[in-house]
Amino acid sequence: MDISKIIGGIRLDPAATIPLYIQIANAVAAKIQENILPPNTKLPPERELAELLKVSRTTAINAYHQLERQKMVRTRIGSGTYIAELSSHSVPKADIPWHQLFSPHLQTPLSSIIKELVSTVVSSDSISLSAGMPDPALYPLDAFHDLFNLTIKNLDSTDFGHIPTEGYFPLRQELARYLNQKNIFSQPDDILVSTGSQQALYLLTKVLLAPGDYVIVESPTYLGAIQMFQSAGARILTLPAAGRFPLSLMEDYLIRYRPKLLYILPTFQNPNGRLIPLNERQEILSLASRHRLAIIEDDPYGELYYGEAPPPSLKALDHYGGVIYLSTFSKILFPGLRTGWIAAPAAVINRVALEKQYMDLHSNNISQWLLTNFLGHNLLESHLKLVRREYKKRRDSAARALRRHLETLISFSVPGGGFYLWCHLENRITSRQLLHEVTKENVSFVPGEAFYADPLGEKEFRLCFVTHREELLQEGVKRLAQALHALMKNTVASQTNRPNSIRPII
Amino acid sequence: MDISKIIGGIRLDPAATIPLYIQIANAVAAKIQENILPPNTKLPPERELAELLKVSRTTAINAYHQLERQKMVRTRIGSGTYIAELSSHSVPKADIPWHQLFSPHLQTPLSSIIKELVSTVVSSDSISLSAGMPDPALYPLDAFHDLFNLTIKNLDSTDFGHIPTEGYFPLRQELARYLNQKNIFSQPDDILVSTGSQQALYLLTKVLLAPGDYVIVESPTYLGAIQMFQSAGARILTLPAAGRFPLSLMEDYLIRYRPKLLYILPTFQNPNGRLIPLNERQEILSLASRHRLAIIEDDPYGELYYGEAPPPSLKALDHYGGVIYLSTFSKILFPGLRTGWIAAPAAVINRVALEKQYMDLHSNNISQWLLTNFLGHNLLESHLKLVRREYKKRRDSAARALRRHLETLISFSVPGGGFYLWCHLENRITSRQLLHEVTKENVSFVPGEAFYADPLGEKEFRLCFVTHREELLQEGVKRLAQALHALMKNTVASQTNRPNSIRPII
Repeated sequence: MDISKIIGGIRLDPAATIPLYIQIANAVAAKIQENILPPNTKLPPERELAELLKVSRTTAINAYHQLERQKMVRTRIGSGTYIAELSSHSVPKADIPWHQLFSPHLQTPLSSIIKELVSTVVSSDSISLSAGMPDPALYPLDAFHDLFNLTIKNLDSTDFGHIPTEGYFPLRQELARYLNQKNIFSQPDDILVSTGSQQALYLLTKVLLAPGDYVIVESPTYLGAIQMFQSAGARILTLPAAGRFPLSLMEDYLIRYRPKLLYILPTFQNPNGRLIPLNERQEILSLASRHRLAIIEDDPYGELYYGEAPPPSLKALDHYGGVIYLSTFSKILFPGLRTGWIAAPAAVINRVALEKQYMDLHSNNISQWLLTNFLGHNLLESHLKLVRREYKKRRDSAARALRRHLETLISFSVPGGGFYLWCHLENRITSRQLLHEVTKENVSFVPGEAFYADPLGEKEFRLCFVTHREELLQEGVKRLAQALHALMKNTVASQTNRPNSIRPII
Repeated sequence: MDISKIIGGIRLDPAATIPLYIQIANAVAAKIQENILPPNTKLPPERELAELLKVSRTTAINAYHQLERQKMVRTRIGSGTYIAELSSHSVPKADIPWHQLFSPHLQTPLSSIIKELVSTVVSSDSISLSAGMPDPALYPLDAFHDLFNLTIKNLDSTDFGHIPTEGYFPLRQELARYLNQKNIFSQPDDILVSTGSQQALYLLTKVLLAPGDYVIVESPTYLGAIQMFQSAGARILTLPAAGRFPLSLMEDYLIRYRPKLLYILPTFQNPNGRLIPLNERQEILSLASRHRLAIIEDDPYGELYYGEAPPPSLKALDHYGGVIYLSTFSKILFPGLRTGWIAAPAAVINRVALEKQYMDLHSNNISQWLLTNFLGHNLLESHLKLVRREYKKRRDSAARALRRHLETLISFSVPGGGFYLWCHLENRITSRQLLHEVTKENVSFVPGEAFYADPLGEKEFRLCFVTHREELLQEGVKRLAQALHALMKNTVASQTNRPNSIRPII
């Protein structure tokens, strides 16, 4: 490598406002980035640099100083100037105590679980029964490809500019039409489009909850909601999500704690698949209305029923204007669309829109046109028929495999819809022990503790049955059974190690 | 209309779990929504309804009760049951005091300005010089159309699923490559993709600012930033953004208030177009590094120069790891992409990603693939050449028209890049009075007060010169001049009405 030739080839512009030393430093830095000048290359001495580029010696010195400040080069005293190792200039030395500047972050022990679930890669040799994701093979990609080409011709250039914070108006019209079919009588103004229903929940938390406020949730419930409420400083009151809805416990909470809201998934709940029957829905609403309790009804799974359609949503039955309804297309179409929505009284939509305006001005336009047309061309119903048929088969197949391989060792009930089988271990093994064992076989699920605000669920776990086709599901359950049998053989030893005992910290 | 025939045509499913009365109510509600049963139609008496549908009289009564609860029908005593007016059932009676449940919202007098700007529609007869929006005619839509078709074939189905919270990895690679060309040496891990740079600023505010914290901003500055910081309860310290950068005032602030951060737009500032020269950038950094001051550098306009390229960004010159860099494609490509990014030390990216995970899991995938390919196919540089050439003409054209029509009445300087001409009224008229007058002629701009945290700017206003082609710009300035001349004739009368005097509230 002829270093003089490389450096001598740098072209400077003496007429530019950028000083020559910066021009030189930038040109050298670019060659370092492109690896034309690799780490540890010795650069010409300052005097030679000045001659090569026909600049003053001061300019050459300043150029090397600039590169040194940027950690691109380092000077060895008595030896000269060398290109630095990549690692040193790509990570600038942090002279600023960032961690002390950050606002405190309430980090629950399980707060990284969503992040891990989201980054789970579905690879060919692993069987993920953990992430609540639809099967990528069923994404309606051809329809979206056709819609894009159809749509883009009919768009006005204003459709590519800023749209209202509440969402693209034609989409809100389609959503109102869709909700009206489900007896949720809405106008476009009652609807706000969000970046997934996660953002809808974040916005509502921001707008409704202050530190110390009480929130009622089911137990177990969606783990993202628990984390969101806790990170807002709210206090969680739990209602067991099994058997008859515990109305009198809810009433006690209402009287004693005056909670701000009830967060509930009445239809094919995440994680336990529970469906609240119509009469209990009416009882919940009548108790809530007497206490002026606001309800957030989260309904990502309502369309995914594998037998009879579920009863009307709480929102459809709402007679006191207290229900805020959330849903999303992530579980039905594909998560990358990032499109959810809130249907709520106008007072709520207006306040949430003020917050969303600060947050991101508005959500992405492209997904919003595409969905407008997907709904407008009535493509949703046929897609739903397809996924319902397919997911029903998978639910039944997973349930059969669990019964065959794990007969007396676990119990579960078969949900009428949704994504999940909620299993209970009928022996000494905990779901964390099982997870630890089964990940060796490239199978994963979510241990029950993740879904509880209280320290419960160590014998429970959630299996998502929709992500993989039947053969893989069967294989996953088989490996799960092998792991459990292997664990049970070795439990005598682990018995002595009681995981729940608290030891002094010394 | 044969009401008996319509009602009699309702099909019920006695085997379904949904009770018959709900089935009836839903069917009637659907016919109301479809306007088959218009408002004020009289429904059959309960006994007749029971006969028509072969159900018990109790079922018929319950069905009407259900419809009444939903405000779909109303009962006139002694007269019967009638379909309600649409307005009454589309807006459920709010029995819940929503406004009392909301967290307090710091509403600055100007906080609705962004919302209005965003919803400004560029129609054929109005000339908006207010919104900071690129010209829709220059959006590279053909390129994006081709890229979509090219891209979608090469995508894996995982690209439609959940991607990391920090952004689509190939896009972060392209952004790192792009930033490296600008001497901002980055790895993909130093970058987080956000829903526009608005979300980036929201995330940073959330993570860095607590109520009572001090923030230094330029005065004037981006109005969205002032609002964001104020709504987080931060206190604003201002540095005049004219002439030499006021280093000693900044140092006084640092010593006296220990501010959390400096928010700054060093390149073609919004609103006043100011470019901070290289030597002042270095002085700012050296003062900031001595005080361990974090800097948010907002750089949406850096690529839009109409003469010489601007000096390196603060981030490129950062030698103490204290600069967080924000940018966006909204001003260069089109706002509907909603794609901005943060380049910052890994500690900042990690903390911001934790917050973004709660907020929306991750931003929209579709924009992220499209941008990956737009950058990967090197389409950015040629698009930038096009818009720079065109916007330069518009800047010069707007400046000529202002000089011709408003010679001595306003003053302004011509910025080297960006979107805005920042004008000062050299007479008694305020920019709000002028705005009021000129909107009658369908021309709009943003009055100066919007950009100040302090009560300043009543003689200033911002004109965006990029949104319209030259003829419209000229026409807009002409109407502005007419409005100003008209106002000046009538100022004697308005003199008596001093707008700044404070009157007792009685």
